[in-house]
Amino acid sequence: ASEAEPNAVAVPGAPYPVFTRQEVGRHRSLAERVWVTYGSEVFDITDFVELHPGGKSKILLAAGGALEPFWAMYAVHSQEHVLEILRGYKVGELSPEEPSQPAQGDPYSGDPPRHPALKVNSLKPFNAEPPAELLTENYLTPNQLFFKRNHLPVPAVDPARYRLEVEGPGGRVLVFSLPELKHRFPKHEVTVTLQCAGNRRSEMSRVRQVKGLEWGVAAISTARWGGVRLRDVLAHAGYTEEDEEAGERHVCFEGLDKDLSGAAYGASIPYRAAMGRGAEVLLAYEMNGEELPQDHGYPLRVVVPGVVGARNVKWLGRVSVSREESPSHWQQNDYKGFSPAVDWDTVDFTTAPAIQELPVQSAITDPAPGATVPPRELTVKGYAWSGGGRGVVRVDVSLDGGRTWHVAELMGEEQRPGRAWAWRLWRLTAPVPPDHTELDIVCKAVDTSYNVQPDTVEPIWNLRGVLSNAWHHVRVTVAED
Amino acid sequence: ASEAEPNAVAVPGAPYPVFTRQEVGRHRSLAERVWVTYGSEVFDITDFVELHPGGKSKILLAAGGALEPFWAMYAVHSQEHVLEILRGYKVGELSPEEPSQPAQGDPYSGDPPRHPALKVNSLKPFNAEPPAELLTENYLTPNQLFFKRNHLPVPAVDPARYRLEVEGPGGRVLVFSLPELKHRFPKHEVTVTLQCAGNRRSEMSRVRQVKGLEWGVAAISTARWGGVRLRDVLAHAGYTEEDEEAGERHVCFEGLDKDLSGAAYGASIPYRAAMGRGAEVLLAYEMNGEELPQDHGYPLRVVVPGVVGARNVKWLGRVSVSREESPSHWQQNDYKGFSPAVDWDTVDFTTAPAIQELPVQSAITDPAPGATVPPRELTVKGYAWSGGGRGVVRVDVSLDGGRTWHVAELMGEEQRPGRAWAWRLWRLTAPVPPDHTELDIVCKAVDTSYNVQPDTVEPIWNLRGVLSNAWHHVRVTVAED
Repeated sequence: ASEAEPNAVAVPGAPYPVFTRQEVGRHRSLAERVWVTYGSEVFDITDFVELHPGGKSKILLAAGGALEPFWAMYAVHSQEHVLEILRGYKVGELSPEEPSQPAQGDPYSGDPPRHPALKVNSLKPFNAEPPAELLTENYLTPNQLFFKRNHLPVPAVDPARYRLEVEGPGGRVLVFSLPELKHRFPKHEVTVTLQCAGNRRSEMSRVRQVKGLEWGVAAISTARWGGVRLRDVLAHAGYTEEDEEAGERHVCFEGLDKDLSGAAYGASIPYRAAMGRGAEVLLAYEMNGEELPQDHGYPLRVVVPGVVGARNVKWLGRVSVSREESPSHWQQNDYKGFSPAVDWDTVDFTTAPAIQELPVQSAITDPAPGATVPPRELTVKGYAWSGGGRGVVRVDVSLDGGRTWHVAELMGEEQRPGRAWAWRLWRLTAPVPPDHTELDIVCKAVDTSYNVQPDTVEPIWNLRGVLSNAWHHVRVTVAED
Repeated sequence: ASEAEPNAVAVPGAPYPVFTRQEVGRHRSLAERVWVTYGSEVFDITDFVELHPGGKSKILLAAGGALEPFWAMYAVHSQEHVLEILRGYKVGELSPEEPSQPAQGDPYSGDPPRHPALKVNSLKPFNAEPPAELLTENYLTPNQLFFKRNHLPVPAVDPARYRLEVEGPGGRVLVFSLPELKHRFPKHEVTVTLQCAGNRRSEMSRVRQVKGLEWGVAAISTARWGGVRLRDVLAHAGYTEEDEEAGERHVCFEGLDKDLSGAAYGASIPYRAAMGRGAEVLLAYEMNGEELPQDHGYPLRVVVPGVVGARNVKWLGRVSVSREESPSHWQQNDYKGFSPAVDWDTVDFTTAPAIQELPVQSAITDPAPGATVPPRELTVKGYAWSGGGRGVVRVDVSLDGGRTWHVAELMGEEQRPGRAWAWRLWRLTAPVPPDHTELDIVCKAVDTSYNVQPDTVEPIWNLRGVLSNAWHHVRVTVAED
């Protein structure tokens, strides 16, 4: 029909061709072209399929039908700029005779209540961070304030019916109830900082637009986790440390949180990280001495010390060992780092390794950007952490934009050599440089491998806005004396 | 006597008080003040003792006597600016009746011949690097071109009389001849890149003066090492991996190279690095298929994959296990990183950990700085490496000072996950940006923990000029078309 239109370019007010849902339903693949509806409008999104930040396979689930059920699941789409992109692909209207799409049941209606202090970056799925000033008030982050990063609705798990499946060598599957797991394996506790790969993304998106949630500096938190060691469970299933040489390379996790296609959230970690002597990867059922909260994976989650949050699978349903990494979208086509030269037209996700250990990181949590600070002496607070069990050696703080530096005092618990899984909080009290009405406060940390944070954001910019660990700046005003 | 002088400030030509060697000999400690002689002059260096880059204990060895025997050992002193510092402390002349200091036998007379292509940073002790352009011509650096970093004269070791001492639990000492060692333990081979902590120091000293040898970008090299695993030797002596939990924290090494006080070069590494499952620390007797060369530790040296060169003790004499790090000067008071805010007046070596794993590093080896390059297309070559077995994920190269980036092609052998002990060489061929008569070529690498190199040198400047891993710049001229 559209070929018959006198003008193929969409002109406001110009009439669009009219289609039935059945006609739209014939466009379900790239070969047939990919059409979708939203409200009463029809869109040919074929050219957008490869550009979809959530991946090609995900967007094709909606092909030939309505977007609404998917957008209800992934509320990140409920933004004006997403609608704007969509409008660019409009090719028609739905026939007025078509019944309107039935109202969607909200897949997030089972999500738990949350603490009102959280700064919400996305409501559905729920993604929120605590206010930065509160973050470093405690070495262990209170559960309610611990940053929350869900990819899907929180699954409702009946603890009585909950079962963990563990695939042993040769495909034999062991099944554990929660009491069985607790009974059979010794309890292990470890204090671990988790950080989202997208922590501090908002600084990166200020350089150039990125795809992802606008995290501030608080998509990082620390808890005392209690559970069983993954190593003990895998050993019970029949695996040994030596199996790595036999080609067992990855331990894969599947969550009970599932998308509309029924695919579970999934991730994997290197076999060695799970099975190495002294490895402390947990299947955790406790967080800061309490039962695991719903938002944090009740009744069981993975905690991988030193590794990016995305591999710490929540609502754990299944563990398996494989020669290959998890096939999940989040392992294969997300949570990877790229050169600033790579954009969505040129990105090839197979060329970059999945993020596991994170680089050295630090940020200022107090004072807040734009605050007014006292004129003579200033106290600056923040956190510092590094991946892979590397400890924090030093935090340098500058009150003059990086021209001169002070060494901050490290607080909180000492770190174990090679197993520095938890952050150091830090503090600096220093004289305010005279004759400054404004200060550019900066921090940068050094880890035990003497890795440092890069000076600026732009050269580490990447299209997904992950791994944002440049020096952190907070600009403040000095009160008059 | 000097109090009687009409003018205490040294005036050229003004007479100095005259002392005998015996009088000088009374000034051997800070309490008596520290005097030394050089030629026929007398100096009170008390105020310099704490500033001595080589350490207080070392300079006090010369107290009350002549500097010449020490400077013969540490030829780094044979520089005009060292003499200038010394002149500032002059307090007198030696009596003309004193016999002159007997000529020193050269402690370096036994050093081996070296390849003429090496760029010598210090002749005594011998410190030299290959020309950068030659460095990346081979994945394995030829032994003769492998960078050489000696701290003392090369000891003459008679292989027939050579014995390695290994201290077992409870202090029992095992003694191995070279044939015994080769016979008793399986041979293990591993390709390892070694890098001096001071590699690229010359870039740091251009920011602000540092104490140390002026290394370019080639104090790094790669060899295939053959030897026995330290882990096997320590296990034979009675140690187990579990002993770490019992408080065994460090494996200490002593070389057969000794200073004038009889103290051996020494260093230590964490127990886990030596005894962890799959640890590949070698006691090496082969380098690239040849017997270990004299300059590289003949007949036996330590090779610690992923760890700073300074811990790879050469001419190995003794191995022991300890709750404490090596007491050696080089472990305790050197090879540590500090904030740019710390200078020789404020440095406290106890506050920083000894460098072990090194941070991510890369440099351009071709073209050379100042070269003229062809006008249309340019090939840039270099190396990239990271400590701790972390592999190289990517090298970004810019031809315009860091504004835009290309991804370089990684060459050489693939790296093993978690055991990436050897470098990747890399290459980029790209169009020369139009309308440029000069190019500022830059490289920066990313490792598997997604650590990156810092943008600039100044914020990582440190008084010893170690850990110089900022982006590497090479400025060249573009030939006319």
